Amino acid sequence: MPKKPEICTMTKPAVSYSKIQKVSNAGVVEANDLLAAEEPLEIRVGYGKAGDRQQKNISVTMRTPGNDFELALGFLFTEGIISDVNDISEIRYCTDANTIENQENIVRVELKESVLFDFKNLERNFYTTSSCGVCGKASIDAVKTVCRIDNAQTNLRVSKELIYSLPDLLRKRQNVFEYTGGLHACALFDAEGNLFLSREDVGRHNALDKLIGACLASLQGQSEAFPFHNYILLLSGRGSFELLQKSAMAGIKIVAAIGAPSSLAVETAKEFGITLIGFLRGESFNVYSGEERLI
Amino acid sequence: MPKKPEICTMTKPAVSYSKIQKVSNAGVVEANDLLAAEEPLEIRVGYGKAGDRQQKNISVTMRTPGNDFELALGFLFTEGIISDVNDISEIRYCTDANTIENQENIVRVELKESVLFDFKNLERNFYTTSSCGVCGKASIDAVKTVCRIDNAQTNLRVSKELIYSLPDLLRKRQNVFEYTGGLHACALFDAEGNLFLSREDVGRHNALDKLIGACLASLQGQSEAFPFHNYILLLSGRGSFELLQKSAMAGIKIVAAIGAPSSLAVETAKEFGITLIGFLRGESFNVYSGEERLI
Repeated sequence: MPKKPEICTMTKPAVSYSKIQKVSNAGVVEANDLLAAEEPLEIRVGYGKAGDRQQKNISVTMRTPGNDFELALGFLFTEGIISDVNDISEIRYCTDANTIENQENIVRVELKESVLFDFKNLERNFYTTSSCGVCGKASIDAVKTVCRIDNAQTNLRVSKELIYSLPDLLRKRQNVFEYTGGLHACALFDAEGNLFLSREDVGRHNALDKLIGACLASLQGQSEAFPFHNYILLLSGRGSFELLQKSAMAGIKIVAAIGAPSSLAVETAKEFGITLIGFLRGESFNVYSGEERLI
Repeated sequence: MPKKPEICTMTKPAVSYSKIQKVSNAGVVEANDLLAAEEPLEIRVGYGKAGDRQQKNISVTMRTPGNDFELALGFLFTEGIISDVNDISEIRYCTDANTIENQENIVRVELKESVLFDFKNLERNFYTTSSCGVCGKASIDAVKTVCRIDNAQTNLRVSKELIYSLPDLLRKRQNVFEYTGGLHACALFDAEGNLFLSREDVGRHNALDKLIGACLASLQGQSEAFPFHNYILLLSGRGSFELLQKSAMAGIKIVAAIGAPSSLAVETAKEFGITLIGFLRGESFNVYSGEERLI
């Protein structure tokens, strides 16, 4: 069982205050409200041989500040750029930015010299392949091409009662959501239904990247891979292609969403042998694929 | 009052069927379920002088098929690439793709020769400015730079009772959501609370681009601009920076979200003089900015 990753120190607050007016039939009341913070994060990657290091700006995402290094790590992993945390020599904020605020919105990840990746193709990753063009099937094929996970079966089996219990456990852990109502969350649970780790963000893809990145970070310096296949992933909202793509890249085998899945999310789950559960509400849910893991 | 745009014929279904298992304490039942369709859409732009036409791949977005031309139009408008529908000479599916399925996932928009846009800077639009770097303030400044809307005040004023009534009116119109539970929706209402137009999509930003694009398309060949400032925008979910950015680009002055806004969404609303309402549920809501438009 891997160690639980330490929670990173947040350098910026994940919430901010706003003066609002609460309107109802009882009248208008001035109040203070807590908002989920949203700020851009730019991820830059340094790569290449010593003496000939290159830099590539990989993405700008609107995220809730906090756990930024985990977000960068998870993003690079789910995009297929790194295979584990040991591919990285350093993650830091860019100190060349002109203000402190900017510094905390730019993360630079140094890849080890040995890591080779063709950044030219990155833009088209996961949506299009040169052979097939642009369609759902091409999107799934593209994930298959970059996925490095050994698609071995897992013995993970769960009961419906265990699945029923997950949303309440996540809700108790959603600190920022509790006050702002404005965040997506996701969490990993072990086979006994214990919450292992959860992450929140204004962007659901960021929440999942932070969660996956935190798990990877917990294995720094170790040779073993994080056993994602032994955990159940719970999503606070809907299941989109992007979330199933990231799950497939990590090797997660059971994904339960409180909301609805999309057509392409279901196809991706089937293609990667993922058990996909949706509409998990109270004591009922739908199973879209991989029902053999339910006992 | 502008004409209501015609609903485009969908070339691909917006829903698909899936065999599922419904699990509850009553047991497991096989069933057919309707899923919201999700497929990639690539937007390509043709530009430049005759004899020297260039092509730029602008974006790939995961969207629900249908209203694709409106989506492309709305996206180019809210990114500041076109100022109205008359900047465009043609929108079509790319017939050079190798399969019919691919064809319907690639839209090519031909800009008129007179339209000049520096595509080099597009990637950094709205998140970073070269002067300030990457932060929330820079994101708002970047919107200001490309926004072509005359920021004139509107006389639009609304009562709280009118605001209360909007979610029910939208829900009645959400055809696909009703069956799949898997779509975001948005709608424009006039000052009397009549639903003018609504759009749905797996991506909330796509739903808004489709809505804005449909309004622009209704004015093809006319010199007037669409009077977005006379309408109230309702969002079925949360209010993020991206949605407020698109609203600001269109000149929408009242945005009501059923969910929570983010910190940067509130800042953007304040900066552009937009009335931003959140947590619109039953007979109550919060006002985050622009309360002077409520009577």
